[in-house]
Amino acid sequence: MTVAGRLAEIADLGRDAERSGYSRHLFDASDPPLRAWFGSSAEALGLLVEEDDDANLWAWWMPQPGAVRHDAIATGSHLDSVPGGGAFDGPLGVASAFEAVAQLRADGFVPVRPIVVCAFAEEEGSRFGLPCLGTRLLTGAADAASALARADAAGVTLEQAWRDSGRDPERVGPDPERLGRLAAFVELHVEQGRDLEDRGLPVSTASAIIPHGRWRLTITGEGNHAGTTTMDLRADPVVAFAGAVQAVREVAASRMPGARGTIGKAQIIPGGTNVIASRVIAWMDLRAFTDDDVREQYALTLQRMRAAVQAEGCTLDVHEESFSARVDFDDELTARVTAALQPEFGQVPAIPTGAGHDAGILSAVLPTAMIFVRNPTGVSHAPGEDARDGDCEAGARALAATLRMLAGSA
Amino acid sequence: MTVAGRLAEIADLGRDAERSGYSRHLFDASDPPLRAWFGSSAEALGLLVEEDDDANLWAWWMPQPGAVRHDAIATGSHLDSVPGGGAFDGPLGVASAFEAVAQLRADGFVPVRPIVVCAFAEEEGSRFGLPCLGTRLLTGAADAASALARADAAGVTLEQAWRDSGRDPERVGPDPERLGRLAAFVELHVEQGRDLEDRGLPVSTASAIIPHGRWRLTITGEGNHAGTTTMDLRADPVVAFAGAVQAVREVAASRMPGARGTIGKAQIIPGGTNVIASRVIAWMDLRAFTDDDVREQYALTLQRMRAAVQAEGCTLDVHEESFSARVDFDDELTARVTAALQPEFGQVPAIPTGAGHDAGILSAVLPTAMIFVRNPTGVSHAPGEDARDGDCEAGARALAATLRMLAGSA
Repeated sequence: MTVAGRLAEIADLGRDAERSGYSRHLFDASDPPLRAWFGSSAEALGLLVEEDDDANLWAWWMPQPGAVRHDAIATGSHLDSVPGGGAFDGPLGVASAFEAVAQLRADGFVPVRPIVVCAFAEEEGSRFGLPCLGTRLLTGAADAASALARADAAGVTLEQAWRDSGRDPERVGPDPERLGRLAAFVELHVEQGRDLEDRGLPVSTASAIIPHGRWRLTITGEGNHAGTTTMDLRADPVVAFAGAVQAVREVAASRMPGARGTIGKAQIIPGGTNVIASRVIAWMDLRAFTDDDVREQYALTLQRMRAAVQAEGCTLDVHEESFSARVDFDDELTARVTAALQPEFGQVPAIPTGAGHDAGILSAVLPTAMIFVRNPTGVSHAPGEDARDGDCEAGARALAATLRMLAGSA
Repeated sequence: MTVAGRLAEIADLGRDAERSGYSRHLFDASDPPLRAWFGSSAEALGLLVEEDDDANLWAWWMPQPGAVRHDAIATGSHLDSVPGGGAFDGPLGVASAFEAVAQLRADGFVPVRPIVVCAFAEEEGSRFGLPCLGTRLLTGAADAASALARADAAGVTLEQAWRDSGRDPERVGPDPERLGRLAAFVELHVEQGRDLEDRGLPVSTASAIIPHGRWRLTITGEGNHAGTTTMDLRADPVVAFAGAVQAVREVAASRMPGARGTIGKAQIIPGGTNVIASRVIAWMDLRAFTDDDVREQYALTLQRMRAAVQAEGCTLDVHEESFSARVDFDDELTARVTAALQPEFGQVPAIPTGAGHDAGILSAVLPTAMIFVRNPTGVSHAPGEDARDGDCEAGARALAATLRMLAGSA
C-alpha cells in the first residue's frame, strides 16, 4: 500500500460542503468512521487496538505480547481538522505511521521495544476551543473537570458530548501508567509553511514550537443610525477595529521573520447593514521565536492599537485567553532521528514551527521529536494545504527508518 | 393621558436582554401584544380597528360611519424596531397619533374628513431584510411573490411566517382601493440626528429623505495558518477589509455634511482565531444629499478600496443590493403642516433626513409629510435614542393641530 492510498480511504469523510475542505471535529458524524478506519488499518497490520479513557486511539505492535515494557516508541498524530481544513494536517502522520509499520513488517523487521501508533483526540480544538485536548487530558496539562465544562458553539458541553458518544466522562483524566509505558514520541506532520519547498528538501526534523499568545479584544463605540449620524459625530468601533487590524499587521511585519500577527475572527454587534455598530469583539493571535519576543510584540501592538481606538472615540478592553510558551524538542532524540534519516536524505535541517502539536504537549512528560513533510503550497488550515505523493512516501520511509533505529534495540 | 404614558404601556414588550434596548420584529413574540395594545388604545378612543391583508393596522375615526370617503387624513408610524433599537423610533409616531386624537376628542373637535391612525408592518426590515415591508406590499412597490419568498436568518420564509401567524399569504399584495380612501399621510417620528437639539427647537417638518445605496462587498484572499505563515506570504482579507473600512470613512468624511458612509455588518470566513481568513463579506451603506452625490461618493470610495484590497493581494467583488433615490416630501402639504404648527412653535424648519420611512414609500402614491420631534442624544437605532417627555407632548400637540387643519374641512 501507499500513504496516498491510505489517505484515499478516508477522503470522503467529513467533507465541508460550505467552506470546502474538511471539517472533522470531536464526536461529529465523521468521528466514528475515522476511528473505524484507524481500527481496520491497525488490525490489517496485526496491531492491538485500544481507546484510552480520553478518547485517544492506540495500536500496539508488541514484541512479546503480554509483557509490560516501559520503553515503547510512540508515533502518530490526529484525525480531526480545523473548520474547512486540508487533507493532510493530522491524517498524514497517522497514515504514514501505519505505512511505516507495514514497510517494517514487509522487511521482516522485529522490534525489540514496542511500537505504538496513536491518533489523539481534538488536536485542533475546533469544537471545544481547547487545542490538543486528548494529550492535555492524558498528561494532566488540562484539568478534566474544567475541560468537561467547556461548551461548543451550540451550547453542548464536552461532558454531554462525551456521554452522548457512549463514553464515560467520569473516567476522563490523566493516565500516568499509560504514559509510563512510553520512551519517546515522534510525530510526522505536513509542514505548515514553505521552508522545505524553498530549500528543495522532502523532509526535516523540528527544532521547536514557537511561542503563541491569544487575546480577546473588545472595542466599544456608540451605536447609532447609519443614515442620520453625520461623520463628525461618530464613535464607530468598526473603524477602530480597522485600525486595530492594521496595528497587528504593521508591528508583526516590522519584526519579520519571527513575528506573526493575525486577527482571523471578529463579531460586530449588533451587526446591521444600516446601523453604526456599538461593539466589536475580535481575537488576536501573536507569535514570535521567543516568549520575550511575543511579549514585546504584544506591547508594541497594543500601544499602536490604543492610539487608533482612541482616535475614533472608542474604548479598548483586552483579555489574555492563553499564552503557550516556546517548546524545544528533545535534542538527543532529534539527533537520533536525524541520524536515521541522513543515509537516504542527506541534508536534514531542524526547523521551527509556528503551529501547536500534540508533540508539544507530550514533550513535558517524555522525549519528543517531529518529522516534517514538504508542503508545496505552504498553505495550512485551509483546503489548499498539499503534499506530493512522492514526498508522502518519502515521509513514510523516513518514519520507518526512525522506528527501526529507535525500536530496534533496547 | 400623555404620550409618555402610552409608551410606558409597551415598555416591557420586546426587550432585548442581550443587546439591551428593543428587538421587535414581524410576527415575533412581541408582535401580538403590540397589536393588542394598538387595538385597545384605538378602541378606548372609539376608533374602528382593522388589519389589512398586508398586516398593517388601521384605526378609523369616521365622521359618518358607513359613508365611504376618499379624502381621509392618515397618520401613524410603525411598532417594530431594529435589533437592539430604541424606544421611540416608530412607537412615538403611533402613540402621538392616539394622543392627538384624544386631545381632539377632548376639545370636542368634529372632523369633516376621516382620520385614520396606522401602524405599518416591519418598517425596519430587520427580520426579512426588506425595509417598509408593509407599505411596499400595500402600494405594490414590492412584488408580493418575491417578498413572500424571502427568508429570515433561521431560514423561515415570509410566506411560512405569515401562515404560522394565522394570516393568509394568498391575500398579500397591493390594495389600491384602500389607498384610494386616503388624501394625505403625515408621519410623526423622533429625529434621528441632533439638528433640532442644536437649533433649540422641539419640532420640525421634513424636507426630504436623502438617497441611499447599499452594496455587498466580497473580499477574497488566501486562507492559511496564523502561526506558520510568515507576514510576507499573506493575502489576508481581514487586512484588506480594514483598508476598505477606512476608504469608506475617509471619502465620506471628506464630503461632509451630506455624505455618510458606514460598514456595520461583516462576516469573516471561516472565522477561526488561529486561521488567516479566506474571505470577508461586508455590507456598505452610502448616503448623500442627492442621487448624483451618492454615485460619485461610491466611485471615489471604490477607487480607494480597490487600491487597498489589491495592495494586500486580495480581490474585490461588489454587488449593489439596493439604491433608494431621494424622496422629496409634498411641498404644499408640508406648507400646510408648517402653518398649523407656527402658532405654537414659531420657527418650524424643514430638515432632510438620512433615514428611510413609510412616508417615503407612500409619497409615491399620495401627498405625504413628516413631523420630527427633538432627540437630545441624536442617537438612533440604538438604546441611547431619546426624546424628552415635554417634547413628546409638544409633538402630540403639533400633530393634533395638523389633523385639525387637514381634517377640519373638506
